[in-house]
Amino acid sequence: MDANQLKRWVVGKPMSLAQASHERLSKVVALAVFSSDALSSVAYATEEILLILILAGAAATHLSVPLAITIAGLLLIVAVSYQQTIHAYPSGGGSYIVARANPGPTAGLVAAAALMIDYVLTVAVSVAAGVAALTSAVPLLFAHRVALGVGFVALIAFANLRGVRESGRIFALPTYHFITTFAVVVGTGLYRALHGDLEPVPAQAAEASTAVTWFLVLRAFSSGCTALTGVEAISNGVPAFKPPEARNASITMGWMAGILGLLFLGITVLASALRVTPIEDETVVSQITRALFGTGLFYYLVQVSTTLILILAANTSFADFPRLSSLLARDRYAPRQFAKLGDRLVFSNGILILGGFAALLLIIFRGDTHALIPLYAVGVFLSFTLSQGGMIRHWLAERGPGWRRRLVVNGSGALVTGVVTLVIAATKFTHGAWVVVLLLPVMVLVFTAVHRHYEAVSNELSLERLVDEPPVTTTVLVLVGDLHLGVVRALRFAQSLVPSPRAVYVETDPARTLRLEERWTKGGCGVPLIVLSSPYRSVLRPLFGYIERLQRQSPDGMITIVIPEFVPRHWWQHVLHNQTALLVKGALLFRSGIVVVDVPFHLQS
Amino acid sequence: MDANQLKRWVVGKPMSLAQASHERLSKVVALAVFSSDALSSVAYATEEILLILILAGAAATHLSVPLAITIAGLLLIVAVSYQQTIHAYPSGGGSYIVARANPGPTAGLVAAAALMIDYVLTVAVSVAAGVAALTSAVPLLFAHRVALGVGFVALIAFANLRGVRESGRIFALPTYHFITTFAVVVGTGLYRALHGDLEPVPAQAAEASTAVTWFLVLRAFSSGCTALTGVEAISNGVPAFKPPEARNASITMGWMAGILGLLFLGITVLASALRVTPIEDETVVSQITRALFGTGLFYYLVQVSTTLILILAANTSFADFPRLSSLLARDRYAPRQFAKLGDRLVFSNGILILGGFAALLLIIFRGDTHALIPLYAVGVFLSFTLSQGGMIRHWLAERGPGWRRRLVVNGSGALVTGVVTLVIAATKFTHGAWVVVLLLPVMVLVFTAVHRHYEAVSNELSLERLVDEPPVTTTVLVLVGDLHLGVVRALRFAQSLVPSPRAVYVETDPARTLRLEERWTKGGCGVPLIVLSSPYRSVLRPLFGYIERLQRQSPDGMITIVIPEFVPRHWWQHVLHNQTALLVKGALLFRSGIVVVDVPFHLQS
Repeated sequence: MDANQLKRWVVGKPMSLAQASHERLSKVVALAVFSSDALSSVAYATEEILLILILAGAAATHLSVPLAITIAGLLLIVAVSYQQTIHAYPSGGGSYIVARANPGPTAGLVAAAALMIDYVLTVAVSVAAGVAALTSAVPLLFAHRVALGVGFVALIAFANLRGVRESGRIFALPTYHFITTFAVVVGTGLYRALHGDLEPVPAQAAEASTAVTWFLVLRAFSSGCTALTGVEAISNGVPAFKPPEARNASITMGWMAGILGLLFLGITVLASALRVTPIEDETVVSQITRALFGTGLFYYLVQVSTTLILILAANTSFADFPRLSSLLARDRYAPRQFAKLGDRLVFSNGILILGGFAALLLIIFRGDTHALIPLYAVGVFLSFTLSQGGMIRHWLAERGPGWRRRLVVNGSGALVTGVVTLVIAATKFTHGAWVVVLLLPVMVLVFTAVHRHYEAVSNELSLERLVDEPPVTTTVLVLVGDLHLGVVRALRFAQSLVPSPRAVYVETDPARTLRLEERWTKGGCGVPLIVLSSPYRSVLRPLFGYIERLQRQSPDGMITIVIPEFVPRHWWQHVLHNQTALLVKGALLFRSGIVVVDVPFHLQS
Repeated sequence: MDANQLKRWVVGKPMSLAQASHERLSKVVALAVFSSDALSSVAYATEEILLILILAGAAATHLSVPLAITIAGLLLIVAVSYQQTIHAYPSGGGSYIVARANPGPTAGLVAAAALMIDYVLTVAVSVAAGVAALTSAVPLLFAHRVALGVGFVALIAFANLRGVRESGRIFALPTYHFITTFAVVVGTGLYRALHGDLEPVPAQAAEASTAVTWFLVLRAFSSGCTALTGVEAISNGVPAFKPPEARNASITMGWMAGILGLLFLGITVLASALRVTPIEDETVVSQITRALFGTGLFYYLVQVSTTLILILAANTSFADFPRLSSLLARDRYAPRQFAKLGDRLVFSNGILILGGFAALLLIIFRGDTHALIPLYAVGVFLSFTLSQGGMIRHWLAERGPGWRRRLVVNGSGALVTGVVTLVIAATKFTHGAWVVVLLLPVMVLVFTAVHRHYEAVSNELSLERLVDEPPVTTTVLVLVGDLHLGVVRALRFAQSLVPSPRAVYVETDPARTLRLEERWTKGGCGVPLIVLSSPYRSVLRPLFGYIERLQRQSPDGMITIVIPEFVPRHWWQHVLHNQTALLVKGALLFRSGIVVVDVPFHLQS
């Protein structure tokens, strides 16, 4: 099986452009398709809040409920803001596109960098949290969480290389399964709480290592803000909705925000009521479910649905990252390979890069969700802020009907998300956010450098600069070290190109030259043999000298060097041949005005 | 400083063939030049005998004297045998040359393999023993013996890359210094022994771990046979002697054998009289010298002269190994790079290979002489045997005056050395000789395979097979992905080769094709543009299909594919360009009947 067959087996048969189907989604299906990333954060956001508060002792964990209410309010503001974006950019306005238009390219690049970091982290965090849900149910797997995580990433990447279409049916089942099971957990829990029927779980010993300070509360808030990750997804996917697209998308955005807010609040209240504290090898959601339902069938159902929706959430990044990087490549900010549509209609390079970085993060952070969280939220909120800020400019420029009200909505959205971005960057800086703060400008600089290079090349290569030149003349030299059928083939090839090629021989031993010249009369095909003497036995120096003399004679001409080369039948035979050819090729390759041509002779022996 | 400047600084300026001087040596100088390898074995041969005997307890060590006398007798036989070789092959008859002529090529290859192994081991053993002499005097260095050994090997290799001529003056001083100091040690020691003035060194506790068996004695004998390594050197260097060359060489051989035999016997008798036993961190010679003279100036003089002659012995291999491998390469048994004379008139590849393997052995065997010895002697005696065996065939074929007597001399030489070879292989087999026994046939097989390949290629390429063919026709295709100045340059280059090249474009997106065709009318240089549609966006498949159609049309024609390629100014920019060119090149390179040409466009940006 050769490399091509292997590729076919892994990624499947190639697909033609005509095979790209454009399925339009109903609101119910669209909710499933675009919400997995946002909804899945319910699985870990509450736990991340508690993890910070517990540092000030078990009593401090009750602050989680007011924090969750604040975050739900933030969610409301962001969702309403994005509903306006949906109406303003019905063709799908990702942060990059919105910010690139308003205020301008640089803001667009900052947004793109923030998004790319986010997509990588969405994969890493979602998979880590999905594995945590799995290992909570099956503690035996806890020791293998890094391998499991990397395995999941590889699986999702392969599925996407094969070109998983965002088929509604695949997404609907796990998403609604997740919503249903979590609704049952929250509903049952709250009902029992209201009836005083809740038994707090046995308290874990929690040493307070710090006092309850404003900074600590803000840190907990920052961690909780991960609940909002993925909220923007619907606004990027407006064209996929059934008409009227904008209206349907806007309504779906409302549903999604409502469900997310309720589930997140519910889980946080239950954790508080049950006095659940975070422990290393079991998630908070797992503890809550166990406390309410025991370790029965329903418990496993909840864990499975959690894992599935988190895997699905990671999968959305595999659609978004390659798409964004292809947009960047088309705008010449990224290497153009990213814009190359693979034979399964997917941007394969983007998928491989994303999978690679996500797997790397999982390995570096040993598959630990909590370690990854500080890197996560800052990028998400930065792109929220840029997107909302772009909307402010949009309304100021457009001033359509009701623009003042819309300006106020997006303005407050930009203000709030901007402040939250600063809060997250400040409180999480030493815990990992510094990496992102450092990486963002570096990525923007790289994008800009790539762009400047491509622009300069494009300018340099522009046909505007085309001038009528006299036809190019080529001097064809055949480099020979001996005379045999391989050389004869090269001589004949040279003669097929130009009427009068020359053969060049570098003499290292005068005795051999005599023998060669004798045989040349018989087999030299009438090509004149030029002998360059080399008292120091270097092949390169006399050759360079000769080429430079030729170039001085006709500075505009090209020099074509024909090198006869053996192609042995077995790999080990390579060491027995072509050493000089290789040397000459390496030295001449990419010299200005010189073209090197290998004429292969296929050995049968 | 670029790579070339660095090379000049390390190995010096290139030298022309005219600079190769052919100095003729007097007998006194020749003794110094050719005997360092043989004489230097006095430094370790006695110790190697004792090391085996001591296994049967301190009492058994007295067997060393009769063993040394036997070995000295063996030396006499071998020396007389070689004196005859000198007269028979005055042009310098190395084992390879003698055995290649008589009995034939395969025996020659066995001899060559044995010699090559020997040369590597001579370097390793001599350097290890030289370092041991040094660390006996300066125990502080004992911990660094591996690094010291590798350092010496590197030093010798560099000196030889610069082209150390076998200048008599350089060799005379250390060799005669060694002979003098050792003569003083042996003379003083024997004089005091005869006058009963010797004080045995304090006895080391030596547990007998085995009984005195015939096998043990033969093992000790095998170890002692390392005294004979290097004896053949003079017979290889006959042409370097002043005339009459053969007579002078023969006399020098006699001197050398006499000195070697006396010093070896003397040291062995002294070791026995002083009851010296081998210990790990001090050599036997060092112990003898200390016992006789104390640790004064003369002691250090002896150690320094020992180290120097051993380094010199290693150096002789650096002349012999590259010479032998170049002979093999010329006879097409080794890759032809070995026959390439470097710009300092040395066979650089042979020097580097030898140095590399010797350093590797020193590292593997942790710089321990005793561990290397079992690998050493078997190859040496095998090449003695082959060389003497060759002489038997020589006399039988030639039957000149006195041939019967000469046949008996060489015949007994061959018999004795043959028996010794078997003894060494048998007694040292499990201690390391098996490596050599295994390596020999493998090397011969490799030599033969290389030879068969070169012969087959040479036959395949022979001008005998030259037939008058119609002139080759070449179809020139320029592969384009766009139209810009780089492509224009490639088009003009193609037009300079043939009157009607074609441009080939693989269409992955019909919209782009339209834009390209529009621009082609302006900048296409009149070259027809052939559009190959690729519904699956693969560049290679449609291109291969087109090429195959062309090849079916004219099976004897060549197809030249011209690929425009960017040469960026900075290395990192490579990732931004030429991805498709690279792919196509990799796929087309070395296909039969296809020639790939890169036309470089040097970017300024």
